[in-house]
Amino acid sequence: MDITGRVEALRKIMAEKGIDIYIIPTADFHQSEYVGEHFKAREFITGFTGSAGTAVITAEEAGLWTDGRYFIQAAAQLAGTPVELRKMGQPDVPVIEEYLEKALPEGGTIGFDGRVISVKEGQKYEKLAEEKHGKIQYQEDLIDAVWKERPEISGKPVFALGLEYAGESTADKLKRIRKEMEKHNADAHVLTTLDDICWMLNIRGDDVDYFPLALSYALITKDGVELYIDENKLDKALKETLAADGVKLHPYNDIYEDIKGLQAESSLLLDESKLNYALYKNIPDSIGKINKRNPEILFKAVKNEVEIANIRKAQIKDSVAHVRFMKWLKENVGRTRITETSASDKLDEFRMEMGNFLRPSFGPISAFGAHAAMAHYSAVPETDAELKEGSFLLTDTGAGYYEGSTDITRTYALGEVPQKMKDDFTLVAISNLSLASVRFLKGSSGLTLDYAARKPFWDRNMDFNHGTGHGVGYLLNIHEGPVGIRWKYRAGEVQELEGGMILTDEPGIYVEGSHGIRLENELLVCEGEKNEYGQFMYFDAVTLIPFDLDAINPDMMTSGEKRLLNAYHEKVYETLIPYLTEEEKDWLKVYTRAIEE
Amino acid sequence: MDITGRVEALRKIMAEKGIDIYIIPTADFHQSEYVGEHFKAREFITGFTGSAGTAVITAEEAGLWTDGRYFIQAAAQLAGTPVELRKMGQPDVPVIEEYLEKALPEGGTIGFDGRVISVKEGQKYEKLAEEKHGKIQYQEDLIDAVWKERPEISGKPVFALGLEYAGESTADKLKRIRKEMEKHNADAHVLTTLDDICWMLNIRGDDVDYFPLALSYALITKDGVELYIDENKLDKALKETLAADGVKLHPYNDIYEDIKGLQAESSLLLDESKLNYALYKNIPDSIGKINKRNPEILFKAVKNEVEIANIRKAQIKDSVAHVRFMKWLKENVGRTRITETSASDKLDEFRMEMGNFLRPSFGPISAFGAHAAMAHYSAVPETDAELKEGSFLLTDTGAGYYEGSTDITRTYALGEVPQKMKDDFTLVAISNLSLASVRFLKGSSGLTLDYAARKPFWDRNMDFNHGTGHGVGYLLNIHEGPVGIRWKYRAGEVQELEGGMILTDEPGIYVEGSHGIRLENELLVCEGEKNEYGQFMYFDAVTLIPFDLDAINPDMMTSGEKRLLNAYHEKVYETLIPYLTEEEKDWLKVYTRAIEE
Repeated sequence: MDITGRVEALRKIMAEKGIDIYIIPTADFHQSEYVGEHFKAREFITGFTGSAGTAVITAEEAGLWTDGRYFIQAAAQLAGTPVELRKMGQPDVPVIEEYLEKALPEGGTIGFDGRVISVKEGQKYEKLAEEKHGKIQYQEDLIDAVWKERPEISGKPVFALGLEYAGESTADKLKRIRKEMEKHNADAHVLTTLDDICWMLNIRGDDVDYFPLALSYALITKDGVELYIDENKLDKALKETLAADGVKLHPYNDIYEDIKGLQAESSLLLDESKLNYALYKNIPDSIGKINKRNPEILFKAVKNEVEIANIRKAQIKDSVAHVRFMKWLKENVGRTRITETSASDKLDEFRMEMGNFLRPSFGPISAFGAHAAMAHYSAVPETDAELKEGSFLLTDTGAGYYEGSTDITRTYALGEVPQKMKDDFTLVAISNLSLASVRFLKGSSGLTLDYAARKPFWDRNMDFNHGTGHGVGYLLNIHEGPVGIRWKYRAGEVQELEGGMILTDEPGIYVEGSHGIRLENELLVCEGEKNEYGQFMYFDAVTLIPFDLDAINPDMMTSGEKRLLNAYHEKVYETLIPYLTEEEKDWLKVYTRAIEE
Repeated sequence: MDITGRVEALRKIMAEKGIDIYIIPTADFHQSEYVGEHFKAREFITGFTGSAGTAVITAEEAGLWTDGRYFIQAAAQLAGTPVELRKMGQPDVPVIEEYLEKALPEGGTIGFDGRVISVKEGQKYEKLAEEKHGKIQYQEDLIDAVWKERPEISGKPVFALGLEYAGESTADKLKRIRKEMEKHNADAHVLTTLDDICWMLNIRGDDVDYFPLALSYALITKDGVELYIDENKLDKALKETLAADGVKLHPYNDIYEDIKGLQAESSLLLDESKLNYALYKNIPDSIGKINKRNPEILFKAVKNEVEIANIRKAQIKDSVAHVRFMKWLKENVGRTRITETSASDKLDEFRMEMGNFLRPSFGPISAFGAHAAMAHYSAVPETDAELKEGSFLLTDTGAGYYEGSTDITRTYALGEVPQKMKDDFTLVAISNLSLASVRFLKGSSGLTLDYAARKPFWDRNMDFNHGTGHGVGYLLNIHEGPVGIRWKYRAGEVQELEGGMILTDEPGIYVEGSHGIRLENELLVCEGEKNEYGQFMYFDAVTLIPFDLDAINPDMMTSGEKRLLNAYHEKVYETLIPYLTEEEKDWLKVYTRAIEE
């Protein structure tokens, strides 16, 4: 069945059920950033394969909302289907809520699978329907009836992440979680985010694209953990380990019924921004809902010493792989046929050679020339460009090693590039180095520090239209809350930086139709001097890959900025040489040479 | 009656009324920062004359809580009284709530005058009493019975601030306010903050120390304004002007009864953080309370073009006065006897000569040597020090001209000062100039930009323990919300910067027992280029007084920082010369000379 057929089949069911509008987001039951094959309902109904987007189907219209990084790809993939591309953020494109408000007839019904929608969204749709004296229908997944050959929900095995990688036992993690429950007078705590569950239980799986997570729900009580997971994924040893930590196993979907049976009048710690709408609706009214940020979020953001030591190793591995890739790229571009995707495959080859490599840590971005002007362009066969001299290759990719996940962007000059490109590259390098070198007082958030990265841009009436940094999970989600580095205040998103947190530092420049540049390192938050003024903090850049000197214009840099670049390059060289061949060392020496201060 | 007698007399009444703890803050009925003579109840009961502090009296204890700027003064003034000094912020000193919690007996009563306590504080005391199964008593001012010779509530005349100063008619202001009321579906809007009322009605008065405000309350409806004010303060012309704007006059205190008579089921826009507790308690339960920040707060923070043009004039006047003072100081220190207070009197003399001067805009700070290490030391006869060569004089003072209010700090080297002092001074100058020179995108708050001022300190593991900047009122409050510049996030205090706002820029260094340095200019927020990235903004420093070159160490400055200093000094010289004598010009030329870049 082609897309037209699928949309028509869905419309038929919608008509039968009296549903006027059906919403299909890109989500699983856990609000995951990437989803497994079973959950690619939006892809099934539209044909668009990108990682973000929402389809909205009515009797007459079919629309796909997606963001700037996917405009090219979505346009190509939607061509010839009845699905219209709605470019998010464009002035003439209504946001989904505005569209629904208009499209929903008086007394109409909005349908969606309540398990793939957050509490907040569900309540928004509820309110929207109410205003039109209509209703919502959230208890059925209509796609299921249309999608005949739908893949089963993933049943891939789960493995234990040893203490040599996790650094803290489940028993100790549960102690901390229960202390938080006690603080909020909660009898139980429901946890549905896969990374939080995997972190808590020191397990990893393979049920979601890129992130090594296991589909599961957890209900933590004062003396046990009810874990909802397909039992067949666990081997005997792991079952015993979990049992020893007081974890009881239940079939994956049983939580929807079990939660209805929570002891009356008891209180439940939950995070409305993370829970799905259907599960939330099943919580009995008599239960006291304590809506707080899941305590696991901050716990896992602060890496322990074992994790930090591992992360340093993972970053060195990835840096060595990058150096080899950079050398290979510089030596082969213009001689061998290299495309965006073959380049990122090559980089992954170098990574695999480093050992303990699990998988890429997110969907790779490999963008040549004008493609890189889309901040998060994603190459697919339809767009895959061949690399040529005279412009940049931007690679934003990452690896999941047992020693942790990386998220690294480099931009490489292919052959000689125009002066304007060099100037832009230099500006991005200055921005990256300025942020990495800040010293600050404890109590600062990313909001306090973002100016360090923006100043080089703002002083020139320029900017980049995305955040400067995000937290990074340890073999979990690559975008990990609650920390971030941005300049504009957003309610509820201010988080103090603490020692042991890992953040990215990724300024960029995007010149439409020409080129894009981004340089992304991971920074470790460290504690410095403590004195009468308080606890001082600083960043340690753990990613150690040259900023391409072929694209640096020293004349744009102050002597302080040159010092920062030289110090970084010296650190790169000194740290990596033990892992390199003589030839590689000689090559790196040149690409980490000091520029004149 | 001495302080002991007053405290005893209060305790007698407390015992009669069954009150265990009585709280006397420094406040009038309007949460004003400075208060008129009638309202100096805390001063009456403790003898402490500082502008901030709260007295808490029990049968056995009498305590005064005040902050660091008043530790010396309060210690001197409380000596020999039964009132104990509680130094706020010191590790062993409980905050008032902690103290109350301990001191209140089971079933006890906390008393206070509900008119001088904010809604939030009142509710806190309510809760505290409740937890001890006790109660609060807020409807009587017990000080009134003790204070036999209490000054009357001020009856000073009110004057109209002409359109040539205010720049916007009351009619237009009311239009904007009513639009906000409409937005929130409010039938009425109660306004009790004096600066908001004076701004709205283009009036000024003389009922409060320093700020030219008139004691009043206002109730704004869809078609009129009920103004509660002593009618004798208004002359015939002003009454007619107000009547033309739909303003009806009522006796000052009648609002407490009138508010009880609001039409049932109507809705009232109010600001709980500004209203006093007693008035709030008089609002009938049937009234819908719409608790929002008073819309006047943002309106008056954004100065209109007439105000801006005037503010520039006021700043030039004050800058000329400062230059004359600086010259006089440099030429006379060590030759004439000059003390902290005589110095600030001299500065005010120069100000008065500039014309259109109403009064100082706040309590002056004039601090020599180690006194200046207390960020807001206030000289009184008991502490007034003589100026000597070899250290700094710090003056943080301001003027209210018809053309607006100033708030300016300069630190002057008296004779030759030690190298360490020069280095500290240079650091403060770098910080001030760095913040003043930022360019930023619209959407930034003070939180986004504060790093520019902190960086020079933080890079050296140093800091200053106060905000970097605050808004400034136009012949209203000197500390005017809602904008500020600080590094640490505080919930509810993030405000986007808009063109036309005026903020201070006042970094400092405080070395206990040695010296204190602060340099404070007013910055005007301006709109710059608008392009694909958004609306760029910048600051224009409107205060134009040299940073004392006798205390600048050029070796500490980058060439960029030297350029900023030289550009500022050039602007100072070029702007002020039309107002100076030949001799003054020659002198200023030297003190604004370019340092070698």
